[in-house]
Amino acid sequence: MAAPMEKKAHSRAESRPQLARSLMDRSAEFGRWKAQSLSKADLSRKGSVDEDAVEVVELLNSREEFFTTSSCAGRILLLDGSTEGSGVQKQHCCWLLVTHKPCARDDVMAALKGATSEAVLKFEPFILHVQCRTLQDAQTLHSVAIDSGFRNSGITVGKRGKTMLAVRSTHGLEVPLTHKGKLMVTEEYIEFLLTIANQKMEENKRRIGRFYNYLQHALKQETISNSHSKIKERNNPLCTHKNRRSQGKAQGPSTTEDNGRELEDGDGLEISAALFLGDD
Amino acid sequence: MAAPMEKKAHSRAESRPQLARSLMDRSAEFGRWKAQSLSKADLSRKGSVDEDAVEVVELLNSREEFFTTSSCAGRILLLDGSTEGSGVQKQHCCWLLVTHKPCARDDVMAALKGATSEAVLKFEPFILHVQCRTLQDAQTLHSVAIDSGFRNSGITVGKRGKTMLAVRSTHGLEVPLTHKGKLMVTEEYIEFLLTIANQKMEENKRRIGRFYNYLQHALKQETISNSHSKIKERNNPLCTHKNRRSQGKAQGPSTTEDNGRELEDGDGLEISAALFLGDD
Repeated sequence: MAAPMEKKAHSRAESRPQLARSLMDRSAEFGRWKAQSLSKADLSRKGSVDEDAVEVVELLNSREEFFTTSSCAGRILLLDGSTEGSGVQKQHCCWLLVTHKPCARDDVMAALKGATSEAVLKFEPFILHVQCRTLQDAQTLHSVAIDSGFRNSGITVGKRGKTMLAVRSTHGLEVPLTHKGKLMVTEEYIEFLLTIANQKMEENKRRIGRFYNYLQHALKQETISNSHSKIKERNNPLCTHKNRRSQGKAQGPSTTEDNGRELEDGDGLEISAALFLGDD
Repeated sequence: MAAPMEKKAHSRAESRPQLARSLMDRSAEFGRWKAQSLSKADLSRKGSVDEDAVEVVELLNSREEFFTTSSCAGRILLLDGSTEGSGVQKQHCCWLLVTHKPCARDDVMAALKGATSEAVLKFEPFILHVQCRTLQDAQTLHSVAIDSGFRNSGITVGKRGKTMLAVRSTHGLEVPLTHKGKLMVTEEYIEFLLTIANQKMEENKRRIGRFYNYLQHALKQETISNSHSKIKERNNPLCTHKNRRSQGKAQGPSTTEDNGRELEDGDGLEISAALFLGDD
């Protein structure tokens, strides 16, 4: 029965241009989202990308398949605000101090003079949000983030198909210092606390460096694979997009199967412990 | 030209069985993963699901499209261990105390007697890992998690296509209490700290309740939509799987476009602040 075979071949030939057009449409749409996003003013309090995050942000934005939408290199902050009985601070509490650099006790003591309520000292590590052209791009970046130590990273797929990777870790600090404006700890404790916060800041900076290096490596691998595939496609027209992607997947630093593998052992508290006990 | 039209219809009819077989294969594979996972022993320290998480875990595991791989309802813990200069505690530090219920000062004071190094009190909120049959199932669950207040939730797609949703929030506590075994704070401070930790535990419990309710609602919507679509499909054989999914998407509580929408404003520190300042 020659006719069905010809029909199959014909439908395959029909669908490849359709697939190619659909990919091109998505690619063009992503390009428009990127242009729009990068043309907007930086509405953060600071108004610019943090120094320690600049390299990573610039590398990602130089690539067609990514653009960053928000970032913070990591910071120590002192917030003053009411918790209204839920233990959770309201958004519009007062920022007494914020720094992206190591912090000295005298700075905190001076800032605490302005505390009237529940002041809390926090260390918040690097956070980055990256919009990705495809889910596979997000997966590549996700692996890089996990390997660098940002173990709370995760993908979001929005309603319009927008794919976002959030790079996050958990090694923070959150320490209540005042109650109704009254300081509940000694200066010695604050000095001790800041030693720890500053160490976390340094470790955070090292992780950003790792992230940048792993990212560079992963992107180089993608570029090499893509150019090999283009050559292969020219020589073999039936080579599919899918085959190209599986060849192209980054082989750099060992990419774990993310948290998924550990968690399939069905290990509740132990795994939560692994996630929380500084393995990130 | 009747022939091309017939060819198109023929190729569509040819590809639908292939698509249906592929979906069935994936579905069967997911079912095998689920059966394997749920048959394993619970390897957590506790050996069983936490009381406050049982309802959610059972609801998810009763559904074909989900199974849970780890969970923790939230806990207060006291850990003792060396930080080795990075500010990050090693995994094999000592657990002096762990509780899923409100904690009293005397319990902590007694546990602190065992501290020999850097003891840290932590509150860790609800965490849940759910393997999802499809990316769309993960998206539904992700929306439920975000709406309930678990704003650090995210999707992981592993190498074998395994799709995992991690339900997480950030409203924790991490408070160093001892240095080289010496207590650095007063008992009064520990009492104050526990008041906050216990409040966070209560808020956490409320969020789990919200999560359960929103989840029930979202799953009911899916079930209703799916049965409507099955009726429609019987009446209209050209109704595609894609159309059915977009009708079925949960319409319950307002589903935000996750973090993606906020973050597209390109707002660095402000958005980090929103994520961190207790809006989760």
